[in-house]
Order: sequence, then structure tokens, then C-alpha cells
Amino acid sequence: MSEKLLFTPGPLSTSTTVKQAMQRDLGSRDMEFIAAVREIRSGLVALAGPGGADYEAVLMQGSGTFAIESAIGSAIPRGGRLLVAVNGAYGRRMVQIAERLGIETVALAFEENEPVDAGRVAEALTSGTPFTHAAIVHCETTTGILNPVDRIGEAVHNAGAVFMVDAMSSFGGIPLDVAACHIDFLVSAANKCIQGVPGFGFVLARRACLQECEGLARSVSLDLFAQWRGLETDGQFRFTPPTHAILAFHRALQELQEEGGVAGRCARYCANHRALMDEMAAMGFAPYLRREHQSPIITTFRYPASPRFHFDEFYAALSRRGFVIYPGKLTRENCFRIGAIGNIFPADIARLAAAIREVLAEAGVDGGAT
Amino acid sequence: MSEKLLFTPGPLSTSTTVKQAMQRDLGSRDMEFIAAVREIRSGLVALAGPGGADYEAVLMQGSGTFAIESAIGSAIPRGGRLLVAVNGAYGRRMVQIAERLGIETVALAFEENEPVDAGRVAEALTSGTPFTHAAIVHCETTTGILNPVDRIGEAVHNAGAVFMVDAMSSFGGIPLDVAACHIDFLVSAANKCIQGVPGFGFVLARRACLQECEGLARSVSLDLFAQWRGLETDGQFRFTPPTHAILAFHRALQELQEEGGVAGRCARYCANHRALMDEMAAMGFAPYLRREHQSPIITTFRYPASPRFHFDEFYAALSRRGFVIYPGKLTRENCFRIGAIGNIFPADIARLAAAIREVLAEAGVDGGAT
Repeated sequence: MSEKLLFTPGPLSTSTTVKQAMQRDLGSRDMEFIAAVREIRSGLVALAGPGGADYEAVLMQGSGTFAIESAIGSAIPRGGRLLVAVNGAYGRRMVQIAERLGIETVALAFEENEPVDAGRVAEALTSGTPFTHAAIVHCETTTGILNPVDRIGEAVHNAGAVFMVDAMSSFGGIPLDVAACHIDFLVSAANKCIQGVPGFGFVLARRACLQECEGLARSVSLDLFAQWRGLETDGQFRFTPPTHAILAFHRALQELQEEGGVAGRCARYCANHRALMDEMAAMGFAPYLRREHQSPIITTFRYPASPRFHFDEFYAALSRRGFVIYPGKLTRENCFRIGAIGNIFPADIARLAAAIREVLAEAGVDGGAT
Repeated sequence: MSEKLLFTPGPLSTSTTVKQAMQRDLGSRDMEFIAAVREIRSGLVALAGPGGADYEAVLMQGSGTFAIESAIGSAIPRGGRLLVAVNGAYGRRMVQIAERLGIETVALAFEENEPVDAGRVAEALTSGTPFTHAAIVHCETTTGILNPVDRIGEAVHNAGAVFMVDAMSSFGGIPLDVAACHIDFLVSAANKCIQGVPGFGFVLARRACLQECEGLARSVSLDLFAQWRGLETDGQFRFTPPTHAILAFHRALQELQEEGGVAGRCARYCANHRALMDEMAAMGFAPYLRREHQSPIITTFRYPASPRFHFDEFYAALSRRGFVIYPGKLTRENCFRIGAIGNIFPADIARLAAAIREVLAEAGVDGGAT
């Protein structure tokens, strides 16, 4: 069976060998499974960079959003105040989560095509009532914009606040020195740049911060501290783990190493992204972001100006040819997105581009975008 | 690679074909994936029994406990009062979840070897401050005891309360007429009697009750109403679904039908259970529960009286032979558990029993239990 290739922010295309790792049923108390979880946790800490020894990796069942809610709901005490710098849907989601949990939250809004400005974050943190916690999204998947996590981290650190980073779509695909960026809690998920299958997220937490979370969580299921304590005590999850997704992730981490770690993977994603930008530019598509703000992870393109362009038809025609792209998520602009992550390579981008040319020609759409 | 057989309450042994269904990466917006989710939801409603048309099936990422917390946290309004009848660890867990969410909760305690008594539930519900909600565990996996959900449902219904049932380890394996039992919210998970892999749970909710949950949830991730609304609006999950586990479950539901539905599956589990009871009795093991309270799902056995019996060694020796059993979870008794669910058959029980005989003989343990 020939499968569609996914040019999406996840679930994404994974290797055959990652999927084959799921062809086993391991008990959640099995020594081999417990060893796999231990290796995953140490492997994630190793990806955090030189200061990794101060961090703990805690896996959390559910989607990445569940892990985000787990970190927010477990780390911020009653009486805490959270500043979220927002330049897209995932920043807004953190605000929504914190507000639902009854946490006093301020959203510092930026345009969706502008990176979060560290100076404005510093200003917000140091004027008025103090904030105990500050949060950003590293790569805002809404657009593909990359926020300057190092400079923002510096600002948060100087203000004495705890720094929480949603690195969902970037961790493992873009080099990041977690300690040097003053990150206290970093959240990502299995089915992003590490190229596992969906089923759980994870939190890289500075041990000293995690130790202060005991008894804070608003939820039993999403209690990050209790989850950590459980994994540390007997290596087991408190509640049934997604054993198959975890075995797939264990294999995916090995394949990340074989590709040369984060640097090697980033090189491929950048090659995918360059090929995509060149092909799309040749067809007349205009990227939404300025080049200097654009991550290699996912790219937003404006709809072509032609009245013959209908995104749903475009999407369906590409899907029939075996290429799955992604709709836009912008507040005010008509755009679509193409991801460059997962088990895809520049040759796949070339095949996708050929399919886009065919589909546009059949629809009589002149490639020229707005 | 010869795999171990899991005689556990889950994750459990699944069929090769269920695992093979995970050898694909489908996009979460793919028509085929959306169709699979729709078929799963209608398939689950069909398992609810004759009154199924009044119910909605909502899938929730995470383990079964996440789905339990989703139901409790989304269905009980501020000012609500919850009565939980408790005769094991999973009843206690519901109490813990509700208390963590700030819900006024009363635990009505029973002995772990006695089923919940409907008369005492009725009495608790009708004396003193009224309860808005009442919850029980159908099959308490702590022991394998089956609680009389029909009579308790009658009592809850007569008291005018909403009835919530944790049917985690029973749904799909023991026939249950959800409407006739007056169940308003039933919770189970993918990797129990329907024999999928772990990664999500699900809630069967009476539509009229679910419609009243808008805006009640304490959590964004675990908001049952919003999850339902999302699935109804465009067939998609709000947050990344465990696509592979869902494809496995889609296949598992087909295999449940091929086995003759819940009745057919229950017949096999009962055959497994009978074989287990006969074999264990022949070796001198004593079951913890009285026969009339015992479900076929999982059975608790007392440790043998011999001082040479050490559970950890017993477990490890069986595991080396390819058979994974389960430790006990009782408050006051030394017991272990053997599950009869999953892709296992009476011939597997016979192989397990032969391995137990070997292990006991090697350890010099006389089979006679306390």
C-alpha cells in the first residue's frame, strides 16, 4: 500500500522502522519496557544541551497540549501570575489553559508575522505587579515563526520569573541550549521533530523547579510532579502508558542519533525548507513571513491571487496524488501551510512541487500569489 | 521474536492484525482517518445496547484515568456533590480525582471482597444533603469483583442523581445495557476488552446530560463537551489524536464483531476464566473472592502458605518463560492477579498453568495456598 506523505506539523510521516517498533505488546511493568522509558528519559535530557544534568524528563500521556497543561497546572502555585507572549494560536492556547485553571494571566500580544520582542517582555515583567512565571512558544506553528528564546530567556531570568517554553514543533529539530536560554520548563511531544508517533508529550524540567511542584497540580491525571515521582520510584507510569507509542519513540530517538543528532536533523529540515522555498517561489507563491523570521519547520504561503484557486479543491487534489498539506490558521489572512519535518527529504519536496504544478495547471490557476 | 503473553488488566496482548493496523501514518485531517473516527464512535454507541441512540461516544486522549477525570471534571457543576461507592483502588481514585478538582465528594466504603450494596447507596443518596452525581466502578480491577450496576443504577435513578460508571475493564467484555442501567456517563479505554492498544479512553454519555456540560470543565485538555463539539463539528479532534492507536482500535472493533460481539467475547473470557480457576484450584491456589462476586476479567489469588514462595521470584520466573502476570493491589492481603482478557485463549491458560507448575516445583513451593 503506497502511503500519503504528510507535509504537516504532525502527526507526520515516520520511518517504517519506527512503526515496526510498535509490533509488540509489552506489559507496562516489564523490565524491557521500564528500560526503554529510562533510556528515553535520559535521551531527552541529553538533547537539552550542555546543562542537561540539571533537568528531568517527564513523559505525559495525551497530546502535546496535555503536556502543556500539565506543566502550567503543576508549576504555577496559587497566587502565581503568568505572562504569556502571544504571536499565534499556540500562545493563545496557553492563555486559555491558564485562565481555565484559574491562574491570573496576562497576554502580551504581538502581530502574527512579528517575533516576540524580548525588550517588551522585559518591560512587561518589570513594570507593575510582578509575574512569577513567563511563557512563550519557541516555533509558533501557526505561521512557522521562530521566537528569540535566548533573548527572552535572558529577560525572564533577569526579572526572576520561571520560564516556560512550548517547544512543541522545534525540539529535536532546531538546536537549543535549554540551560543557556534559562528555560525552566520546556514542553514538546512525541510526534514532532523526534519523529515518533502521537500518544504522549514530555516536559524537560529544571530539577530544582520541579521539586517545588509537589501538591500544586490542579489535576490528578496531569500532575507533573506525581508523574515524575512515579517514574523515579519504580520506573513505572502512574496510569497506563501508551506502550506502543513509547516503543516507537525509543526507536525514533535512536534514528535521530543515527542522523547526527539535532544538528544532523536540522540540516535535513533546512534542506527541505530551502527546496520548498525555491520551488514555491518559482511557481509564484509568496511566503507570509519575512525570511529572517522563518523557521525551517513549517512555512505559511498566501493563497494565489487567481479567483480559480480554492483551497479545499487544491488540498483534495494534492491528497489524491498522495501529498497532504495543511490549512492556514491565521486570524486575518488566507494562507496555507507546508511542513518540512518528519521522514521527508528534499526529493519528496520536489515530488510535492511537481504535484502542485500539475494541480494548478489542471485548475487553470496562475501561480502568481497575492 | 516470540512475545510474552500478557495475563494483565492492560496493556494486554492484542492480535497481530490490530498491531499491523498501526503500520500507517494518517494525517489527523485525512478523510480516511475522520471516517475511522466516525465508525469508532458509532461502533461504541452500538455496544451500549438497545438504548444506544440516546448516547454519544467521545474519545479522549491519554489513559483511561484521563477519560475518568474528563467525565468527572466536565459533568459535575460547581456546587455539585458526588457520592462514590468504593470497594477498591479505582473507586478510591475517582474520589481522589474529584477532590483534587474541588468537588464535594463522599466516599461510601465497602470491603474489597464485598460488592457495592445498592441498598446502602440508596440510603446514602436519600438521607442528608442531596447528591447531584453518583459513581461506581463496574468491575473493580483491584480484585476482579463485579458490582451490581443494574441495581445501583436503579437506586441512583430513583434519587434523581446523574450516574457515572467506570467500566474500564468490563466494557465490551461483559454484556451491559447502558440505558437500562440508567447510566449517564460510562468510561472505558482502548486497551481493555475491545483489545486495542493504549493511547486513549472514551466516554459514552447520555446526549441530554452531555449537552448540559458546556462550560463546566475545569481543564482545557480534558473538556469532554468541547471534545464532543469538535468531533461533531468537523469530525476532528481539537488536539493531536493518537492516530495509530485509533487505527488499531478501528481494527479491534471489527475483530470484536467477528468474534460475535460482546456476547462472543464474553464467552471466550468466561472460558479463559473457568480454565484458570480449574487449573489454579488443582494446584491448591485459593481465590480471594467468593465465586458469585467474581468477574471473568481478572482473578485475585492468595499467596501460597509456603515460606518458599516469593512473589517477585515467581513473577520473574514466569516472565522468563513468556508469561506476564500481575501483582496484587489489595490493602491488607498478600495476593497476585491473573487476567483473562486480551488476545488469549484457553490453550494459553493451559500453557500458563504448566509454567506455574514448573516454577513452583523448581522453587520447592507446595501449591497449597493459605
